[in-house]
Amino acid sequence: MEPDTPHQLPGLASIGLPRIVVVGGGFGGLELVKKLVRAPYQVVLIDKHNHHTFQPLLYQVATSGLETSSIVFPFRKRFQHKSNIYFRMGEVIHVHPEQKRIDTSIGSIDYDYLVIATGAVTNFYGMKDAEQHALGMKSIVDAIKLRNTIIRNFEQALLTTDRIKRNALMDFMIVGGGPTGVELAGALAELKKHVFPKDYPELQLDDMDIYLVEAAPKLLGSMSAQASEKALEYLNKMGVKVMLNTAVKSYNGEEVLLASGEKLLCKTLIWTAGVRANPLPGLPPESLTRNGRCRVDAYNRVVGFDNIFAIGDVACMEGDPGWKNGHPMVAPPAMQQGRWLAKNFIRMAKGKSLKPFRYFDKGTMATVGRNKAVVDLRGLRFQGFFAWYIWMFVHLLYLIGFRNKIFVFLNWIWSYFSYDKSNRLIIGRPQ
Amino acid sequence: MEPDTPHQLPGLASIGLPRIVVVGGGFGGLELVKKLVRAPYQVVLIDKHNHHTFQPLLYQVATSGLETSSIVFPFRKRFQHKSNIYFRMGEVIHVHPEQKRIDTSIGSIDYDYLVIATGAVTNFYGMKDAEQHALGMKSIVDAIKLRNTIIRNFEQALLTTDRIKRNALMDFMIVGGGPTGVELAGALAELKKHVFPKDYPELQLDDMDIYLVEAAPKLLGSMSAQASEKALEYLNKMGVKVMLNTAVKSYNGEEVLLASGEKLLCKTLIWTAGVRANPLPGLPPESLTRNGRCRVDAYNRVVGFDNIFAIGDVACMEGDPGWKNGHPMVAPPAMQQGRWLAKNFIRMAKGKSLKPFRYFDKGTMATVGRNKAVVDLRGLRFQGFFAWYIWMFVHLLYLIGFRNKIFVFLNWIWSYFSYDKSNRLIIGRPQ
Repeated sequence: MEPDTPHQLPGLASIGLPRIVVVGGGFGGLELVKKLVRAPYQVVLIDKHNHHTFQPLLYQVATSGLETSSIVFPFRKRFQHKSNIYFRMGEVIHVHPEQKRIDTSIGSIDYDYLVIATGAVTNFYGMKDAEQHALGMKSIVDAIKLRNTIIRNFEQALLTTDRIKRNALMDFMIVGGGPTGVELAGALAELKKHVFPKDYPELQLDDMDIYLVEAAPKLLGSMSAQASEKALEYLNKMGVKVMLNTAVKSYNGEEVLLASGEKLLCKTLIWTAGVRANPLPGLPPESLTRNGRCRVDAYNRVVGFDNIFAIGDVACMEGDPGWKNGHPMVAPPAMQQGRWLAKNFIRMAKGKSLKPFRYFDKGTMATVGRNKAVVDLRGLRFQGFFAWYIWMFVHLLYLIGFRNKIFVFLNWIWSYFSYDKSNRLIIGRPQ
Repeated sequence: MEPDTPHQLPGLASIGLPRIVVVGGGFGGLELVKKLVRAPYQVVLIDKHNHHTFQPLLYQVATSGLETSSIVFPFRKRFQHKSNIYFRMGEVIHVHPEQKRIDTSIGSIDYDYLVIATGAVTNFYGMKDAEQHALGMKSIVDAIKLRNTIIRNFEQALLTTDRIKRNALMDFMIVGGGPTGVELAGALAELKKHVFPKDYPELQLDDMDIYLVEAAPKLLGSMSAQASEKALEYLNKMGVKVMLNTAVKSYNGEEVLLASGEKLLCKTLIWTAGVRANPLPGLPPESLTRNGRCRVDAYNRVVGFDNIFAIGDVACMEGDPGWKNGHPMVAPPAMQQGRWLAKNFIRMAKGKSLKPFRYFDKGTMATVGRNKAVVDLRGLRFQGFFAWYIWMFVHLLYLIGFRNKIFVFLNWIWSYFSYDKSNRLIIGRPQ
């Protein structure tokens, strides 16, 4: 190790270029690093996983539609032969802005520039019991856990003669009527209609209730009234019990208490009701704002620093006209900020001034089931069959890796014609 | 529940037919149940997993070549619309032959006929330390654990500046030169040659040693001298360090001690050196024979009983001419016994006498790498390119499920042309 760089991960030498450390390889971090290939920087990407996760399709892994490997992509494979890009698997523990250093689970590392792209985690809004008993939908482990739970519950239901207890095993409550909640509810309804009656002829599938609970008066809050209403109509048709204007007060793993005072027995509650940012310990309080997000200027610089940046869900840029509370915590702003910041880094290297970021909102979409999706594009709103095609096309487009695109596409074709979801496997040691 | 059948799993009613309980849905159990569809029996299949596992391809999951879901198949999907077949997920704890009952993790169940098809587990021959520290290769969990270990080791090697410690992370020792050991060694050698140099340009891949240790004087003990020699030649060419006539004495997780007294540092030791049967507790000692196998007659009846049967690895049929020590513990005898026993059950139902089983040995094959396999058929021995095609064809043929066949085939084509193994993912919570 060189004496002038006392803090770097073992084995990671300086290559004589300014070092950008990027924490997190989600949509934002990955786009940033991709655009910094061959830029005059040493780029070190740190992530706790060795792969990028395509979160928008997690719900399909959870409901046996896709296999895990189709929606993840190893970072090392993405950056083969990219000599200025370094990947290290580890978790960041603390940032020391004065020393330009971060501490991680695999050692400390100095940076010239730090980019925080740590994304978001499930927000339980302080409900400890829900946090303990509910399932999330933010990671591959969450998705596999839900898949295992769904199948274990049904196997257990077969062995349960008490009707009330059996029903509690067959019921699912999804809290949160955003895209994830809507898509998950739709996928469960398809399992109920097309798959489980064949797998479990001994069970009365009418007993399987799918509740979708939303505190606001409409589903898909960020979309048009037209899209919300159509999604509600689709879900109703598919037998999902949508409860609007309904907040969850507590959940003990067996019973959920609604704000109305109503109680429902339910062994499985999936929480998609909110996210909060996942910032790094060590930043001063004045750099943080609502929901744990880092306050950033128009160049994604964290307020108070000129060498620390934040992008994506973890960043709150209040200066973009039309987005006074920051950009929505979804993939498109993260990707655009990642790409934009890369350009700014390259401008910086050339001694040029930085250019402010502006979010280009292409629109929002969500799918409910086969031939059923809702799409709001700029000035263009449509639902149904064509929207569903667009949804699939866009997801394939953004999925990373040609092989993944092919395999997901083939899976979708297979499922479309067979009405099957093939991956209903419990992977893991028997309990 | 009817009073005349006091012991049955909750929710599992008698359907007025004699009940066959099959324990284990491996190659033998699955073939048996398939052939009993629509036979005049109530067939209850019990397995601790909800899916069949195609064990011959586990090594490809472990070395990132295939995804888990391609080599497993949900039992319920296989037996959809088969009204006399019942699946229950659970582990059998004890058999009570006098009461014609088994106790399981999900309750007790009466049987008219019991078929033990519980297969085999890794045999460490009493070496407690190896059992504790070595990795096995008998289940999906084993395969994922090895895959995670390989990738974690390499990530850790990057952070290890001490050369000896780094080497220990990059070395792999496989104990056992049977098909699994040979195939695994070959797949690791391909990772070393085609994948890791691109993924880990910072590491010296020459430091990655793959040892294949076999106590006997030749590899692939059950195959012809020609096949053994060719496999050895292939492995040598691929850089695998094959150590014949070498037994392992102990392994503490860091260092392996060979019978010769030689010691080698090695963080990862994979044990494929032997299997032993996995019989059910409750059988009298006189029903068991060497290696834990159940002694069966020519009709697969466990000695001492006329309503308990054993098939596959767990059965030892000493009466088949040419197989004085029982059949080899591999898939073909298990599948043939399963099919044959189904026929005998159907004969029984018709009041006909049972027919004795004879094993038809079609041959053995093993693959070492791309274009490299060895095949011994009846009177026909060949190696190389054509053998490799035959190996792939046979494995696709026996893989369960049309979709799995297609996906494995596409994966193989993809890997063949890209020289890539795409699933190098660490799935699980960060450590």
